Amino acid sequence: MATANARANTANDMTETKDVGGVSGQRLRAYLDRIEKLEEEKKALADDIKDIYAEAKGVGFDAKTLRKVYRLRKMNTDKRREEEELLELYKAAVGLD
Amino acid sequence: MATANARANTANDMTETKDVGGVSGQRLRAYLDRIEKLEEEKKALADDIKDIYAEAKGVGFDAKTLRKVYRLRKMNTDKRREEEELLELYKAAVGLD
Repeated sequence: MATANARANTANDMTETKDVGGVSGQRLRAYLDRIEKLEEEKKALADDIKDIYAEAKGVGFDAKTLRKVYRLRKMNTDKRREEEELLELYKAAVGLD
Repeated sequence: MATANARANTANDMTETKDVGGVSGQRLRAYLDRIEKLEEEKKALADDIKDIYAEAKGVGFDAKTLRKVYRLRKMNTDKRREEEELLELYKAAVGLD
């Protein structure tokens, strides 16, 4: 999966591991490699998500509002209404209408 | 993909869309659904990553240090050395050794 990440692969992939102070370099590196692989996939998904927002923006949707409505849609309805009502209350209290 | 996300699916999946004020509810929902799908995959990966840290911790690695070394390993070597040297300098300046 291609990412925009410009880190020098060679530094990680070629360096030999050592066992230092009771720490197995090989095991440590195996964990780091597994984490890295998944982080790269996560980054690729984040990029895909960004692309969707860009695409939506391209056809006229406001990306910021889209992000807000995405978050609101994910919320439990009761929780959302509670938050919205509280916000309205606070807005009214400081004269925002 | 199973996530820990407890949102009420029914609220999103059953609600009919409307076209309001020139906004196509159907198109809007299509974007939201695509974003949601990818966000769920991203969440699943984040959980997998968390599991790896937990596994490493289980065999004696310190998770916090593992996160630090993960980040350091991803960095360009020159950049990393520069940051490390600057940190050493600042530490020395305030008497941390």
